[in-house]
Amino acid sequence: MATTDKASPRDRLLDAATELFYRDGVSIGVEALCKSAGVSKRSMYQLFESKDEVLAASLERQAPGYAARLIAGPDDAGTPRERILYVFEQVERVSASPEFMGCPYLAALVELKDPAHPASVVARVAKERMKDAFRVQAELGGAREPELLARQLMLVFDGANARAGVGLETLDGVAVATVRVLLDAAGVV
Amino acid sequence: MATTDKASPRDRLLDAATELFYRDGVSIGVEALCKSAGVSKRSMYQLFESKDEVLAASLERQAPGYAARLIAGPDDAGTPRERILYVFEQVERVSASPEFMGCPYLAALVELKDPAHPASVVARVAKERMKDAFRVQAELGGAREPELLARQLMLVFDGANARAGVGLETLDGVAVATVRVLLDAAGVV
Repeated sequence: MATTDKASPRDRLLDAATELFYRDGVSIGVEALCKSAGVSKRSMYQLFESKDEVLAASLERQAPGYAARLIAGPDDAGTPRERILYVFEQVERVSASPEFMGCPYLAALVELKDPAHPASVVARVAKERMKDAFRVQAELGGAREPELLARQLMLVFDGANARAGVGLETLDGVAVATVRVLLDAAGVV
Repeated sequence: MATTDKASPRDRLLDAATELFYRDGVSIGVEALCKSAGVSKRSMYQLFESKDEVLAASLERQAPGYAARLIAGPDDAGTPRERILYVFEQVERVSASPEFMGCPYLAALVELKDPAHPASVVARVAKERMKDAFRVQAELGGAREPELLARQLMLVFDGANARAGVGLETLDGVAVATVRVLLDAAGVV
């Protein structure tokens, strides 16, 4: 995580939050967060109402980058089928990194166990957006039931992320193979 | 959770741990755990080396019951395909309960983020057993690649549990429908 002296206290806090919450979990304390960010607790509480708000803001800030890493850009040619498979190829690729701990949004929801937590609200929006993106491609690809296919893809997406993130699975093609079967069955050729 | 006065302090601690860790997460403190169990901290530390050991023991103790709720018993007739589908029918059924928070073993692994934690070790064994049970049924059912099918079923199992557990999904047949497609493709008829 690039935390340069030039970054604002706010950005340093969000950089540290992004890294620490992902690596160690949402129960990381304010002390550790501020220490890692090189920001005083006083400054943190001037910028954010609470640690919960720092977590929510860090998840919100990383959402565009997270989506960009997984979703093929508008300039990438490709059929809807290829664009859906691309997402899972990317998950398989990033899951090989030793720092990979699964989807940060699903992890936050599992850890927080509170749908009303500000970070849960942000995480739920990010997960809904991903499902919507799948449904759009499913529709474009002529899926028989686009909403059903999008939900199935999310089951595989979250299962693959969670299992690889906790070391239960090495995604050497298994997610992509699973998605191919689902696309075939839905008529997305 | 039935915590009667007749239960031993050990059982009361494990009952409370099972309930609290599942509902509120692994960061629940010793104080809250002992209070809920009606056991002094002194007694807890006489019975267990640490809170981590209580968590590990509670996951270990609930494993047979967890498997029994999901897996068709030996007396239940049924083809391998039916036995595999039964697991997902059960997941869909139990996920409708307001207390449902997903698979306790996956949740513990996601929350702990430490493969060496004693509870992570227990959780990993439980998850491996479930995958092995799927592979046995896949073999009996004549799957083309039983290990691949078992891994695919675990992606769907964990994705469905996680998404329903955090309220991203209502499993009104979507997990079962997904598994049917995978069984068809693997030749398990």
